[in-house]
Amino acid sequence: MSATYTEADLLAVNTIRTLSIDGVQAANSGHPGLPLGAAPMAYVLWTRFLRFNPLDPHWPNRDRFILSAGHGSMLLYSLLHLAGYDLPLEELKHFRQWGSKTPGHPESHMTAGVEVSTGPLGQGFGNGVGMAMAEAFLAATFNRPAHTLFDHYTYGIVSDGDLMEGISAEAASLAGHLQLGKLIYLYDDNLISLDGPTNLAFTEDVLLRFQAYGWHTQRVSDGNDLDAIEAAVHAAQAVTDKPSLIAVRTIIGFGSPKAGSSKVHGSPLGPDGVRATKQALGFDPDQSFVVPGVALELMRAPGESGAQLQKAWEQQFAAYAAAFPTDAATIRLALAGELPSGWDTDLPAFSGEVATRDASGKIMEELSRRIPWLIGGSADLSESTKTPASLTKTFQYGSYQERVIWFGVREHAMGAAVNGMAAHGGVIPFGGTFLTFSDYMRGAIRLAALSHYPVTYVFTHDSIGLGEDGPTHQPVEQVMSLRLIPNLHVIRPGDAAETVEAWKSAITRRDGPTALILSRQKLAVLDRSKLASAEGAAKGAYILSEAAGGAPAVTLMATGSELEIVVAAQAVLAEKGIAARVVSMPCWELFAAQPTEYRERVLVPGGARVSVEAGVTLGWQRWLGERGIAIGVDTFGASAPAKILYEKYGLTVDKIVEAAQGLIG
Amino acid sequence: MSATYTEADLLAVNTIRTLSIDGVQAANSGHPGLPLGAAPMAYVLWTRFLRFNPLDPHWPNRDRFILSAGHGSMLLYSLLHLAGYDLPLEELKHFRQWGSKTPGHPESHMTAGVEVSTGPLGQGFGNGVGMAMAEAFLAATFNRPAHTLFDHYTYGIVSDGDLMEGISAEAASLAGHLQLGKLIYLYDDNLISLDGPTNLAFTEDVLLRFQAYGWHTQRVSDGNDLDAIEAAVHAAQAVTDKPSLIAVRTIIGFGSPKAGSSKVHGSPLGPDGVRATKQALGFDPDQSFVVPGVALELMRAPGESGAQLQKAWEQQFAAYAAAFPTDAATIRLALAGELPSGWDTDLPAFSGEVATRDASGKIMEELSRRIPWLIGGSADLSESTKTPASLTKTFQYGSYQERVIWFGVREHAMGAAVNGMAAHGGVIPFGGTFLTFSDYMRGAIRLAALSHYPVTYVFTHDSIGLGEDGPTHQPVEQVMSLRLIPNLHVIRPGDAAETVEAWKSAITRRDGPTALILSRQKLAVLDRSKLASAEGAAKGAYILSEAAGGAPAVTLMATGSELEIVVAAQAVLAEKGIAARVVSMPCWELFAAQPTEYRERVLVPGGARVSVEAGVTLGWQRWLGERGIAIGVDTFGASAPAKILYEKYGLTVDKIVEAAQGLIG
Repeated sequence: MSATYTEADLLAVNTIRTLSIDGVQAANSGHPGLPLGAAPMAYVLWTRFLRFNPLDPHWPNRDRFILSAGHGSMLLYSLLHLAGYDLPLEELKHFRQWGSKTPGHPESHMTAGVEVSTGPLGQGFGNGVGMAMAEAFLAATFNRPAHTLFDHYTYGIVSDGDLMEGISAEAASLAGHLQLGKLIYLYDDNLISLDGPTNLAFTEDVLLRFQAYGWHTQRVSDGNDLDAIEAAVHAAQAVTDKPSLIAVRTIIGFGSPKAGSSKVHGSPLGPDGVRATKQALGFDPDQSFVVPGVALELMRAPGESGAQLQKAWEQQFAAYAAAFPTDAATIRLALAGELPSGWDTDLPAFSGEVATRDASGKIMEELSRRIPWLIGGSADLSESTKTPASLTKTFQYGSYQERVIWFGVREHAMGAAVNGMAAHGGVIPFGGTFLTFSDYMRGAIRLAALSHYPVTYVFTHDSIGLGEDGPTHQPVEQVMSLRLIPNLHVIRPGDAAETVEAWKSAITRRDGPTALILSRQKLAVLDRSKLASAEGAAKGAYILSEAAGGAPAVTLMATGSELEIVVAAQAVLAEKGIAARVVSMPCWELFAAQPTEYRERVLVPGGARVSVEAGVTLGWQRWLGERGIAIGVDTFGASAPAKILYEKYGLTVDKIVEAAQGLIG
Repeated sequence: MSATYTEADLLAVNTIRTLSIDGVQAANSGHPGLPLGAAPMAYVLWTRFLRFNPLDPHWPNRDRFILSAGHGSMLLYSLLHLAGYDLPLEELKHFRQWGSKTPGHPESHMTAGVEVSTGPLGQGFGNGVGMAMAEAFLAATFNRPAHTLFDHYTYGIVSDGDLMEGISAEAASLAGHLQLGKLIYLYDDNLISLDGPTNLAFTEDVLLRFQAYGWHTQRVSDGNDLDAIEAAVHAAQAVTDKPSLIAVRTIIGFGSPKAGSSKVHGSPLGPDGVRATKQALGFDPDQSFVVPGVALELMRAPGESGAQLQKAWEQQFAAYAAAFPTDAATIRLALAGELPSGWDTDLPAFSGEVATRDASGKIMEELSRRIPWLIGGSADLSESTKTPASLTKTFQYGSYQERVIWFGVREHAMGAAVNGMAAHGGVIPFGGTFLTFSDYMRGAIRLAALSHYPVTYVFTHDSIGLGEDGPTHQPVEQVMSLRLIPNLHVIRPGDAAETVEAWKSAITRRDGPTALILSRQKLAVLDRSKLASAEGAAKGAYILSEAAGGAPAVTLMATGSELEIVVAAQAVLAEKGIAARVVSMPCWELFAAQPTEYRERVLVPGGARVSVEAGVTLGWQRWLGERGIAIGVDTFGASAPAKILYEKYGLTVDKIVEAAQGLIG
């Protein structure tokens, strides 16, 4: 062994390995290759560097650890169990089973100590960048001389697959630009991917690429050399103005009969393979889920010192609170996910004609003033999306206290970074781009919804109403496709007043993401003295304008920019003696959550209904009933001024009136 | 000027510039910055290198030119007009107007000479990689000593935004790995993006990054230096085993009052700005859309020699056909997008229990044998998706004639590359991954649908039925969200026999992409002696099993893996005296295109209906009518064996029977 590592350490490493393959074998499903190869680097990280308290997985200044290669989940579960987190051995035995805390890929809302949900490759890599950004922001904002509250590292283990994905390329470029010195990734460089040797598809010079991004890079030539790994992490820490990538040459499936082959990547070793591996690692092949006492002791030690570190940190915080009571109060609120009192009083009011993106921009300015931990930006479209823009006060190395983030033209990394920020805590993150390009970040949006991250997306240019840019930029299917994602709130406000309500909903939501869908074009600010209050939007849908006499012959439903059109159609129908109700439906998810009684009050069962939305009609049938007519856009858009497009695509008062008449006539 | 370029050339360059700003100004919308900065490199490329015949934009061996930075579309339209393509000056005057051939971003199906639709950044970059792959494949397969039929270049102009996107990072890594020497990109390196200077978000060393990918890189320090640009392209051509990136330092908005600023990126110059720019470029500020004769002459010349080149190529082809008649016949078929006779006779038949992914794999093997220009692969999931896999016979530098492509874990680049291959012609491309990761390539899928590219996606692991991998890998919303994309066919076959029909549909479709949605788990091969023939799948939906007596009390609708469950439910209902019809609905788009009469025969209006699909129910209401019940999965999945999940999520015969009874009872 080495000077600092003993046989006991090797036993602990092999305990991680054998627990992991036992879990996979018990499930008869999973990925044994990564844990066997990467256990040594994980062991060094967890016992020599990672500061954490397993009894309080939410200690704000803990180091973060991300297993970006989430398919190696048994590695993480073994580590969590051995380190003393609330993950009993029984859970490892129920790997990948119904109701267990050990799902096939790590899910942060399921398992204490799992920082982020990973599995879809590259996401964890991007999450870590967001976590390091959140730490940098909190440190720059709140640390004071002799009062260092925030100074944790973000570590990760990343794989070939992670590094091939575009999302991590974007995130790496961003992290290098931002010079995130406390971000340290170990690259499980095992030369094998699912289909076979990586050199059939992946022969780039990874370290040179990361140098080009501005990263500090190192290579450890033997993934079993604990000293070398430790030295590399120390060297990475010493470079404080660059993120670090340490390529560690490992052998996938180390110790198993199929070591070094793609056959060991994603399939259980089989009973014989497990036996042979245990023998090779010096374990009894007849026993499973064995945790030698000395190994447990070594693995428990860091958590025990971590508990002490947290105590010390809490004392530091008390001293800080004495010296800077206002800041301390702010930190407490931010970390608790609460909001300052009065944050939502007297938000901007609007009149005349205002694009909902412009309304959103003004609301955000106000929210930013009131919530100094609201932080975000756009994918190089700040002026278009009206997310706060600045050329001088931006989140950069040396000015991490600024809250305007330039994500660059990197939608997917933006999505992963805001997820990481939300998972980190202490900040309320948002990201903006054109709605069409939500497609580019859909992988990250889905993980936000799955993992309950409170993230806000500002998606503008929400339909053919953006006009001349044409069909490549005109969303048609995106609003509905976002509605399909479970646990995502999609809010498409119909005017500036509903935009205020939309932002309130997004900011207060703590258990999942919200997508705001906003117009490029100006919309009438509806006259609420004659129409219902926009506060009805909080229920997802509401009667904006009742039919004359309260007995609608037809109900006109719309969202967003089409709301003013149905209001106009209601008047025309009234002239024709047809009583129409107008229902605004900015958020289907909120509406669906209302009691049946409320829903049936808004949409009378069996009633004639017309829906109008500048997007695909598939999905609207949910609210239309058998007799309903959906007016929408079921083909791609076209390049022309918006008004002409609305005419050509039939999003007009005339067409609505015609449809309503046809329905009831 | 230089030794080889004269004032006349400069005049031509400035003609491109002024036409472009006139187009933007006429539309009062668009992006003048890129055309003003990049006109010189475009001019050099189009007059000194590009081999094309404007009178036959489909000449198979033409060089391809891609404006990946599609927002600079007026540059391309100016070039096409001046070079003699079918794009009259009138069209330039109607830039971005309804019905014009000059939409805001280039669309390949709208405008002759536009090779691919671009605008969403990074897509064109990836398309070019696919085009170069197609060229390499055709050259390696069909060229013979002294008979070089395929040897064209693929050129492109790419922007900062393109290079920040992850899709281009993936595509660049792939292109470098594949050593695509005939791919040459000019990088419009103008230091400005939409929000301001690129150095606020993008400070990586781009050329070093591309060297890491294995590219040949060069820098041209003055984007107006035509000689330097020409020399660089020559140098790029000389390197035959690496793709090339030439960074050309340009001034965005060159010649305009706002040159060098982000203000000139995406907004018209305004009348005064246009006047000032024309004056600076030596043009009459009082005239618009001016094409000096000498400029036209210079720009028309390449097309005229191109027509001669095509003639010579056709003679070459005739000589080739005489020497290799079989190969020539194959080439003709492939280029025409036709299929060899008998390609679909005696496709595999199946019995017992077969996962549709396995059926698909066997069908593909057969199709590959019969259609030697069927080419594709997967994003490192060949063994899982059952797309043809090989470790030895793969498409690589030195073996470009092979048809198994290792795309690596690069879904988005795969999507863009197969688009490029389809746009190139002569090959039938496909790409495969897990259905969940279709999210990662959605931007490319959308462009395939918009641009009518005949591409096939093999998406397997199509529901919670994949089991233990858990919710990060279990598609829930993806089938429906793909159905929302206009012009995309989504086919989810219910058994192996329907999988044959699905492949037939995909292979014969020429005007858009098809997504095959396939199960990981085994499914019963339905007994067609008792049930209707799977050929009904060609109509999108069909009566698989009529209710006893032909008068259904309830219709059970399903797709994919849920089809066998509703068949079983039908039998249970029959025992209870309830006559149920079973309708298989593998492809909604095909069904919606059937005559009303057929549709109403399959789904009797007003009838009681139950739908069963292991995905979100939103959308099924389209077929359910007022009284229908949708059985599906409206939350994320979970990690457990598939059979347990089907129980827990209620995708069972019992639940279906219960729903049917509830409906009619």
